Amino acid sequence: MKQYSVKTVLVLLFSFSLCWSQVDEEIIQDFKSSSVNQPGKEYPKVNSQGRVLVRIEAKEAKNVQLDLGGIKYNLTKDDKGFWSGVSLPQDKGFHYYQLNIDGASVPDPGTLYFYGAGRLGSGIEVPAPDRDFYALKNVPHGLVSENIYFSKITNSWRRCFVYTPADYDQNTKKRYPVLYLQHGSFEDETGWSVQGKANLILDNLISDKKAVPMIVVMDNGYASKEGETNASFSVFEEVMTHEIIPMIDTKFRTISDAKHRAIAGLSMGANQTMRILMNNLDLFSSYGGFSGTSNYPTAEEIDPSKFLNGKFNDAKKINQKINVLFLGMGTKEPIPFPNSIGAFTAMLTKQGVDYVFYESPNTAHEWLTWRRCLNQFAPLLFKN
Amino acid sequence: MKQYSVKTVLVLLFSFSLCWSQVDEEIIQDFKSSSVNQPGKEYPKVNSQGRVLVRIEAKEAKNVQLDLGGIKYNLTKDDKGFWSGVSLPQDKGFHYYQLNIDGASVPDPGTLYFYGAGRLGSGIEVPAPDRDFYALKNVPHGLVSENIYFSKITNSWRRCFVYTPADYDQNTKKRYPVLYLQHGSFEDETGWSVQGKANLILDNLISDKKAVPMIVVMDNGYASKEGETNASFSVFEEVMTHEIIPMIDTKFRTISDAKHRAIAGLSMGANQTMRILMNNLDLFSSYGGFSGTSNYPTAEEIDPSKFLNGKFNDAKKINQKINVLFLGMGTKEPIPFPNSIGAFTAMLTKQGVDYVFYESPNTAHEWLTWRRCLNQFAPLLFKN
Repeated sequence: MKQYSVKTVLVLLFSFSLCWSQVDEEIIQDFKSSSVNQPGKEYPKVNSQGRVLVRIEAKEAKNVQLDLGGIKYNLTKDDKGFWSGVSLPQDKGFHYYQLNIDGASVPDPGTLYFYGAGRLGSGIEVPAPDRDFYALKNVPHGLVSENIYFSKITNSWRRCFVYTPADYDQNTKKRYPVLYLQHGSFEDETGWSVQGKANLILDNLISDKKAVPMIVVMDNGYASKEGETNASFSVFEEVMTHEIIPMIDTKFRTISDAKHRAIAGLSMGANQTMRILMNNLDLFSSYGGFSGTSNYPTAEEIDPSKFLNGKFNDAKKINQKINVLFLGMGTKEPIPFPNSIGAFTAMLTKQGVDYVFYESPNTAHEWLTWRRCLNQFAPLLFKN
Repeated sequence: MKQYSVKTVLVLLFSFSLCWSQVDEEIIQDFKSSSVNQPGKEYPKVNSQGRVLVRIEAKEAKNVQLDLGGIKYNLTKDDKGFWSGVSLPQDKGFHYYQLNIDGASVPDPGTLYFYGAGRLGSGIEVPAPDRDFYALKNVPHGLVSENIYFSKITNSWRRCFVYTPADYDQNTKKRYPVLYLQHGSFEDETGWSVQGKANLILDNLISDKKAVPMIVVMDNGYASKEGETNASFSVFEEVMTHEIIPMIDTKFRTISDAKHRAIAGLSMGANQTMRILMNNLDLFSSYGGFSGTSNYPTAEEIDPSKFLNGKFNDAKKINQKINVLFLGMGTKEPIPFPNSIGAFTAMLTKQGVDYVFYESPNTAHEWLTWRRCLNQFAPLLFKN
């Protein structure tokens, strides 16, 4: 009898399941233009199954592919030179993608562009059942301001986006609490207010009186000293604590104490901001870690006497100092996220550290998870 | 003797001059990465002649072109599958461009993206000798805020960007004059603060005390009523006067009178804002028309008793009502701009209407002309 390696069997099973799902489920022809297309652009489209239909003119091309969710789909050419094709069903929410045209990886000229995967690329929005919480609605809208500043620590110009709530410019004597909110790896300071829709989430929560009006500062998590090639978490911590926070407290009407200051991040940003929090418990009183923790990527049991220099050893002190310790992730997160976050929450539980845990249904390591995390986290902040 | 048509002779002369200039001028090998590339991207590059060097991987492609300034340059492929090529010298300043890969017109994955020509596309910056006036310098920086609002007139969500000067958030009792600043055709509300660098120009002017601190509102010049397919100037005028101005006067600390309100635009925006100005002399006291006038595209002599319903008939009234009437254009603007602007200024002169005229040296119908126009215009505003 012929022997198959485990790898071969897995590949065969995967191929079969792909074929099976493609054959099994008919493509429903209810495609609509994606909500994150450029004005007036019909393609790409999304259907009710979450399938993505792309279309691009490339008369002389030999091979055009849609590169989405780790799969490269070969498109087919019509007699007018337009290439099109449909993907497998995608999770609800936002996904980055690219097109491949005869070996060139380029953005789809139909979409708006989003910074992720270390470049400005295309994005697609698969409507989620709960999309109302980040929808553009008839509520008072805050402003998102581009704020340019010079960092002496990195000897470079940097930029953050600052959300100020709708009543900020009306109540010019009122001061506001601040949430510092960080992006993930290979993303940048634009992520939270563009694909993250942080401003709309806050507008809706504040209008519904579910969250208190707050300022949200979205900076770039990459920082390095002059001459250093690699960005470092510790340089970013220095920039955050010595430059960003003092600048925000000077330029905006903040309440500048720990009680009214929170810090959160997604993935790499969760890892970074947990370190910043634990090194600076005099600066922050609340924390949100979305799809990430500082023990990433390991799933090993955490020894609190050693982890982050023993910062989680004294549960009583932490419970006293930290008002909200929020952890969130998607139910479909890939390895190593569930395991390393699991090891972290196990340590918290064992230590007796209070925390809130949230799971986003049917989402992976992507923006719908993080939009939902923010929507769960922000209402907990600055309430007492 | 063989006869050549005028067209043939012109084509031959043009081809000859292209060959000649390509042969004549050696390509100087001092290419540097463009200042508007994505972070960490080496290509495209620009040399001291203003030539653009692009490079993209497309292993299987048959034909890759750089589409810049109305010319499609064929690129050549190296043995690793990278296509590259060098353009003719470009004017100083900012230019939109695209790549063509086997018939697909796509943005270059190396650059930031800019809304122009009715799409988000690539851009290149050829350093100008006077680039200091729009450089990011160590001066106090204002904020550029994204402001979302619902327009009842168009029954749609719209967006403007609002520049507030550096001292706006410090002096919470101070009120500021406002400049409404419009983009050109196939551009949008992002143009002035991204490729236009309006915020940096104002930061530098205000820091040098050449311009008074002012708010700048950059909205989208396209507006149509529900069910109408084409945007109309008159609907935009209604949105500007009935929605944008009242909203800005409510949300921001403006001085809400005509004396402290100016309106300006480039190309289509110059045409639109001149109409808005002349229909609303009770709302605005200053005007800037950059590379455009409301008689566009004709070069015919203007009859002031008929043009814009006779609005320029009464020079005395105009001189009384309009504090600054500024017109600007580049010395290399193509037909019909010099002629239609010329016909307009001839009419102003004949009528005895006071105006300021500025010519940007060696620039065409492009952003360096408009950056320079703003730099000339803003210092004239709100001075008395």
